Amino acid sequence: MSGRYLEDFTPGEEIVTAGRTLTEEAIVAFAALYDPQSFHIDAEAAKQSPYGGLIASGFQTLAIGFRLFIDTGVIAGTSEGSPGMDEVRWLAPVRPGDTLRTIFRVTEVRPSATRPHRGLLRGMMHVVNQHGTDVLTVSTTTFITRRPG
Amino acid sequence: MSGRYLEDFTPGEEIVTAGRTLTEEAIVAFAALYDPQSFHIDAEAAKQSPYGGLIASGFQTLAIGFRLFIDTGVIAGTSEGSPGMDEVRWLAPVRPGDTLRTIFRVTEVRPSATRPHRGLLRGMMHVVNQHGTDVLTVSTTTFITRRPG
Repeated sequence: MSGRYLEDFTPGEEIVTAGRTLTEEAIVAFAALYDPQSFHIDAEAAKQSPYGGLIASGFQTLAIGFRLFIDTGVIAGTSEGSPGMDEVRWLAPVRPGDTLRTIFRVTEVRPSATRPHRGLLRGMMHVVNQHGTDVLTVSTTTFITRRPG
Repeated sequence: MSGRYLEDFTPGEEIVTAGRTLTEEAIVAFAALYDPQSFHIDAEAAKQSPYGGLIASGFQTLAIGFRLFIDTGVIAGTSEGSPGMDEVRWLAPVRPGDTLRTIFRVTEVRPSATRPHRGLLRGMMHVVNQHGTDVLTVSTTTFITRRPG
């Protein structure tokens, strides 16, 4: 238990993660397992696609964005999972060599009405590339343990 | 190009995919890369979590649900990607040995106002387990090529 309790988050605060660079190999490896569309797995075929070249699966961008947030440690051991997320928006293509980071803005901190030991942390997650362009935004909800006592 | 054009989808129709069984190995492998929370990567620690045992990352359930849909071939070569998705809901845990399949219900088929060669396919995707329980629902939007001419 090294993460923050629910009470340690404040609406309006921003948590900025480290960056991570995506290789073509990582893009193709993910897509081969989970999203084998030609513009995600075949650099040559991707040139003929609307994207003009290989792009990462949006599911990978989403998962990496969340992974970067996890790696900050702020919800380590206090996260109890998530009931869902809303308004996933893929705003710009992610290409091999792009470096992503996540900016997580806390939007709501609310004790649970039915489970007194925990509450809901809501946030708006922006995944941005090396140019500062949002490639993904998503509204997240996470169950977070409350401070004991 | 072996998939359907936009005009080949009909609101109300349901597309049901094959099933896929998740192993503990696959759950842990995904989580190690993308969602390394203890209840996704450590079967022993997961026993102490609110889930009482190892569960799949919701990002993996989402990606597998979409992969099963891709594997039907209905959007092969006619998908031009997606602008986003809405109302992702993780409704029940996915555990090692569970078999998932996807039921995709077409909710809207609409030509694009600005890109005449394509349109929007909207659907409600249900990922269900071997007991017929929804483990995930999500409202999806996909760009689909229109029939030429």
